[in-house]
Amino acid sequence: MPDVFEKLAKIFKDFPGIGPRQARRFVYHLLGRSESQLKEFSDLVGELKKLVKTCSLCCRFHSSGAAVCAICRDKGRDRSTLLVISKDSDLSAIEQSGVYKGLYFVLGGTVPILEKEPERKIRIRELLAQILERVKKDKLREIIISMNVNPEGENTASYLRSRLEKLVKEHSLKLAAPGRGLSTGLELEYSDPETIKNALERRSGV
Amino acid sequence: MPDVFEKLAKIFKDFPGIGPRQARRFVYHLLGRSESQLKEFSDLVGELKKLVKTCSLCCRFHSSGAAVCAICRDKGRDRSTLLVISKDSDLSAIEQSGVYKGLYFVLGGTVPILEKEPERKIRIRELLAQILERVKKDKLREIIISMNVNPEGENTASYLRSRLEKLVKEHSLKLAAPGRGLSTGLELEYSDPETIKNALERRSGV
Amino acid sequence: MPDVFEKLAKIFKDFPGIGPRQARRFVYHLLGRSESQLKEFSDLVGELKKLVKTCSLCCRFHSSGAAVCAICRDKGRDRSTLLVISKDSDLSAIEQSGVYKGLYFVLGGTVPILEKEPERKIRIRELLAQILERVKKDKLREIIISMNVNPEGENTASYLRSRLEKLVKEHSLKLAAPGRGLSTGLELEYSDPETIKNALERRSGV
Amino acid sequence: MPDVFEKLAKIFKDFPGIGPRQARRFVYHLLGRSESQLKEFSDLVGELKKLVKTCSLCCRFHSSGAAVCAICRDKGRDRSTLLVISKDSDLSAIEQSGVYKGLYFVLGGTVPILEKEPERKIRIRELLAQILERVKKDKLREIIISMNVNPEGENTASYLRSRLEKLVKEHSLKLAAPGRGLSTGLELEYSDPETIKNALERRSGV
Repeated sequence: MPDVFEKLAKIFKDFPGIGPRQARRFVYHLLGRSESQLKEFSDLVGELKKLVKTCSLCCRFHSSGAAVCAICRDKGRDRSTLLVISKDSDLSAIEQSGVYKGLYFVLGGTVPILEKEPERKIRIRELLAQILERVKKDKLREIIISMNVNPEGENTASYLRSRLEKLVKEHSLKLAAPGRGLSTGLELEYSDPETIKNALERRSGV
Repeated sequence: MPDVFEKLAKIFKDFPGIGPRQARRFVYHLLGRSESQLKEFSDLVGELKKLVKTCSLCCRFHSSGAAVCAICRDKGRDRSTLLVISKDSDLSAIEQSGVYKGLYFVLGGTVPILEKEPERKIRIRELLAQILERVKKDKLREIIISMNVNPEGENTASYLRSRLEKLVKEHSLKLAAPGRGLSTGLELEYSDPETIKNALERRSGV
Repeated sequence: MPDVFEKLAKIFKDFPGIGPRQARRFVYHLLGRSESQLKEFSDLVGELKKLVKTCSLCCRFHSSGAAVCAICRDKGRDRSTLLVISKDSDLSAIEQSGVYKGLYFVLGGTVPILEKEPERKIRIRELLAQILERVKKDKLREIIISMNVNPEGENTASYLRSRLEKLVKEHSLKLAAPGRGLSTGLELEYSDPETIKNALERRSGV
Repeated sequence: MPDVFEKLAKIFKDFPGIGPRQARRFVYHLLGRSESQLKEFSDLVGELKKLVKTCSLCCRFHSSGAAVCAICRDKGRDRSTLLVISKDSDLSAIEQSGVYKGLYFVLGGTVPILEKEPERKIRIRELLAQILERVKKDKLREIIISMNVNPEGENTASYLRSRLEKLVKEHSLKLAAPGRGLSTGLELEYSDPETIKNALERRSGV
């Protein structure tokens, strides 16, 4: 099979969740597109990093052209709260819920268990600098650490808490975590003890 | 194929999650057992309803021989709290978590949406009677309605609240629900807005 | 949980494809049946081995009450052909296809690869005796060895061929195997080389 | 979210087997690549159609630079046999089996059941022209129609047979189909009647 074919299949094989077979089907799919469709695709990929930048404040990807993203510039957002998430798609999910009106910070990763150099896995220095700046400029009062509820997420949260401890104390910040309990779709019968414990301890009147 | 074979296959086909093909494999499986294994199985099935009774208080299945189950008889349990669940396996999951020390009531079902006769689907009269008795004898103070977090579970909870309303008011009972939020294993990226909303609103200091 | 409950759950856990959780759901399912339903189930299980016997000729399970099953007694079947299968459910599948009109022999198992005592895994002595009898009484001419197309099936077929070799030669029998090729639902793209090889070598005019 | 982001997500959503969520993850994946990696990817996509052409004989994709692909040019292949397949990945699977030494023709699609304009779905005119040329130049003698074993594949084969009928008769060609039977991995118990029928009718001596 052609060289360019195999090179493209190899690139697609690195896409998240894609095996060698589907990677090849992607190339066949491209071969079935028109010249102009392929040109558009090629151009978008080529321009992606020129058009999409990392926001200099929250570190999320954005393409507003400015150094700072639309959320960070939005005067209507509550600047006293900072929600720390692992990745852009977490931010997307939370924005879609419409319930959070504060600011964000995207870590750009998680800290694996037993990781020796956590500062190479996440933007910890940028986070510390950002918190300091927000405290001065925006009277930041609360930081919500919102990680996935799995061992790596909890390890990341634990690392963040230890690194933020001094800053939080010095500036009397509140450090918070999203409430644990029963999430939508959960069936009691299949719940783990931890979730049941959280749900019963945090029960509320109805 | 033999009559007794088909009759047994038909019975197995009604087992939860079993299709016609697996039902037949179950019969072949039995045919491969020894006479004494089949006799033991047959005897256990025959005695099941004689040995396993519904507790006259919480309505769960038990085989203590007494009218009242071991949990309901346990003097160490907190008799001021009643946790209402749909089925025995929910109770099992909660007991395994080890976090709840009060009493239970098993509804024996759920109320489907648009159900016209909810009282035929769940033990609502038995629940009302049980609450009244517990108020008198045990100074019951709190009822926790703990249903699955899906439409049918929420419909059942809503029906229970409306039916318990008068009783709760008359006896100054507290009506509660397990806390909603992020459950174990949840990934933010794949969370629904309702869960994110609950988790952020119920965030707590760490 | 009750003793009889756990004993039944343990028995169901040994059913093919059933894990501990579903085993317990089966017991709850039984607890939800009526007394008369459980009695019928218990009776059927108790009588199963009395009513269902192994045919003295083909060794399949049957409940005709006679020593010989309905297929073996059927004068309309072609007695010159014997189809050897591993288990009763293979026989069922073939009977349902309606294409085969000869006789059967059920081995009652397969020969695992590297098995040291194959004669303990399948009814090889009964098969040899049966072939001899069929040769004398029924002028048997062809034996079709029909195993699953996987390593254990092919190992069993290979063992059968070596054990039948002498008998086949002495009585000028024909030893056959079902045709290999593309089966229903197969997609070329996902086919293994062996299947493609068989299919192309055995291509036929249309 | 950025415009270029959404445009790329939309393109990925059209990839085979990709939903909106994974499409977005693909874009995040690209954002995590380096400038040079994106440039390489963009260049390969841009050049794909320049480098990969359709062979003027068999219609498969190739990048040899020549008008005719390496298989069609290979003097060692048996030019008297033409294997007709739906798509390039079928050809790949067959080449990997190593058993076929003749020539190919890629239809570029299948004919859906009840399709009113089959000639718009597959390269039927190109196939007819190709057969005629091969008859004259290469003394073509046999055409093997090799479609998936499912309704759409069989409908395509049936359409091909009717369209090739006249040509086949005029030039005394042989029209063949791959053998049907048990394919690798098949379990008798789960086989359909059609496959069992084919396998038993096409049984062969061992």
